[in-house]
Amino acid sequence: MQQRIYFDNAATTSLDQEVLEAMMPYLTEKFGNPSSIYSYGRESRLAIENARKSVAKILNAHPAEIFFTSCGTEASNTAITASVRDLGCTHIISSPIEHHATLHTVEYLHHNGEASLSYVQLLPNGHVDLENLEQLLAETEGKTLVTLMHANNEIGNLLDVHAVGNLCKMYGAIFHCDTVQTVGHYPFDLRNTPVHFISASAHKFHGPKGVGMLYINENVKIKPFINGGSQERNMRAGTENLYGIVGFARALELATAHYEADSAAVKSLKLYMMEQLKKNIRGVSFNGDPIGNSLYTVLSVSFPKTEKSEMILFNLDMAGICASGGSACTSGADQGSHVIRAINNNPNQVTVRFSFSKGNTKTEVDTVVSKLKELI
Amino acid sequence: MQQRIYFDNAATTSLDQEVLEAMMPYLTEKFGNPSSIYSYGRESRLAIENARKSVAKILNAHPAEIFFTSCGTEASNTAITASVRDLGCTHIISSPIEHHATLHTVEYLHHNGEASLSYVQLLPNGHVDLENLEQLLAETEGKTLVTLMHANNEIGNLLDVHAVGNLCKMYGAIFHCDTVQTVGHYPFDLRNTPVHFISASAHKFHGPKGVGMLYINENVKIKPFINGGSQERNMRAGTENLYGIVGFARALELATAHYEADSAAVKSLKLYMMEQLKKNIRGVSFNGDPIGNSLYTVLSVSFPKTEKSEMILFNLDMAGICASGGSACTSGADQGSHVIRAINNNPNQVTVRFSFSKGNTKTEVDTVVSKLKELI
Repeated sequence: MQQRIYFDNAATTSLDQEVLEAMMPYLTEKFGNPSSIYSYGRESRLAIENARKSVAKILNAHPAEIFFTSCGTEASNTAITASVRDLGCTHIISSPIEHHATLHTVEYLHHNGEASLSYVQLLPNGHVDLENLEQLLAETEGKTLVTLMHANNEIGNLLDVHAVGNLCKMYGAIFHCDTVQTVGHYPFDLRNTPVHFISASAHKFHGPKGVGMLYINENVKIKPFINGGSQERNMRAGTENLYGIVGFARALELATAHYEADSAAVKSLKLYMMEQLKKNIRGVSFNGDPIGNSLYTVLSVSFPKTEKSEMILFNLDMAGICASGGSACTSGADQGSHVIRAINNNPNQVTVRFSFSKGNTKTEVDTVVSKLKELI
Repeated sequence: MQQRIYFDNAATTSLDQEVLEAMMPYLTEKFGNPSSIYSYGRESRLAIENARKSVAKILNAHPAEIFFTSCGTEASNTAITASVRDLGCTHIISSPIEHHATLHTVEYLHHNGEASLSYVQLLPNGHVDLENLEQLLAETEGKTLVTLMHANNEIGNLLDVHAVGNLCKMYGAIFHCDTVQTVGHYPFDLRNTPVHFISASAHKFHGPKGVGMLYINENVKIKPFINGGSQERNMRAGTENLYGIVGFARALELATAHYEADSAAVKSLKLYMMEQLKKNIRGVSFNGDPIGNSLYTVLSVSFPKTEKSEMILFNLDMAGICASGGSACTSGADQGSHVIRAINNNPNQVTVRFSFSKGNTKTEVDTVVSKLKELI
């Protein structure tokens, strides 16, 4: 059987063996309900509270600001909805290249008549136009929610979180940042970052699927999105995903411990692949700002559209190479990428996202590039 | 170290070893994103769709009616909220002894001005007064949501789902049934049951925490509760909890395969414990309808209040016995049980819920009863 090459780490990552080891006790003997008051339940509670403390320490936040959810999408839904329903935001500013977890939530609130909605303009390289953002903020009457992602999951563009946060501060706006692609991939210092909410997802940094996190700045008081029991200090009802939460924390600890070496290695892979593509494939281009302010894990490549290149994802798959046309979350919908449409609506191109992780190698890049050369 | 006796299976159950084995491939090598279109992702998708088919078959539903969620609470929130926002229900009928996943959701919708709210009366044994339910339905103008639980998690009373469903049918009402305590514990035949929604949770029947299920009858069309990607056929956004879903299905398969033997054994334990308590402890009484229409896994016991009995949960814990004062989901709140208050507001009693599973034995019952005798 051919060796698989997994270049779709922005969709999901493998579960780290060490993370699974940390989860195993809670998948076997330590099954007590964390909300039960006897000692056996309190052991589970302790594991969750230790996970919360560890996550808070790494992000330089207070443990009381960390809430575990079932996924990044739920975290973003919670922050955005609460900003409108609990914090009085009557206007939302977002961008056309957000993840659907954000876009479909803001569209829902807009169509439901709960908030007006504006999209900030993008610069030609896909970055948010901060001047336009300030203009939109200045024009708004009433309280505004700004929801913009830290790193775009398809093209990798990084937002200047501090610049956006400072603008929000100046105009009294609430700022939610979807950091699903960056938590576990960059250092965070939330105590010194002007942001009210961030969303994260464990499976994007070698943690388990089915668990996410919402950071809620201590100065912000919202109501739960999912109502019920008093879990997560009355903020997220439902029996806690004990092993998931333990796995989230362990994965973040490991990502943080090895950040410098891993990120440098992954970044060099991305740059190496860019070089090799430019050398070997005529007409190749890169979306976003790949050697500028860009996520080191993501490379969005456009190939000239031909009969052959239109079949490229199919043929890569046949060759055992995992890469994607855009976000996995939307690939089921089969409507192409709203991100690529928004930044570069060129019908004569075929776009493929390659996304890397610590497990990938230069040899794999060489194999993929030579396969691409053959296929294009 | 003393042996632990776990009599709190209504709070959560141990993960079955066979369920974990079914999950393990997806916690290790099979980590592809189920929404990715390459074959490696499609393998994950296939695992999810096979899980869905298996669950549907066991419940006698159509696979398209089965939606996986992050927990039972999310499932109930989805059904109740959608009934009001998408199906036009302007009135909700519930009961005062529902789980907080239901109560806090209907209260939220009521306080938010989205629906009026009535609570059906209870009979002295804690059962829903069906005559009063019909009266409430008859009095209502506009569409009604009836949300009542199949088995009460604290006292074990079972609802006559067919009777309630038929009343709902007669009055054009939507019926959501919280079956979190009964899926995996009783056979279901949804194709022949007049219900629009049921909620379930894997960790109540030896499946994993962090995964639940919502059945949505095919005649009912709602919008997602969590917005974003197109997972779960556009009904529940967020990367799927792949191992959780696989575990949900495997746990339900195992529970169904061994239902007759396991349920008979657990029921005999409950009856045995009742007998032994009556024989050994003066003034003991049982809440609900324990030998009538009652969940075989739950026994709610009241002891006369004394200085000693007020410390009973603490002392049981010291003796390595896990039992609870009420629902685990509310034990953090430390306000006593709203269920016990609603059916039997006797300040001179102390209530303990014992709940059993297939792993429990008569010897454990003997140990617990003799310990209780000593402690009371």
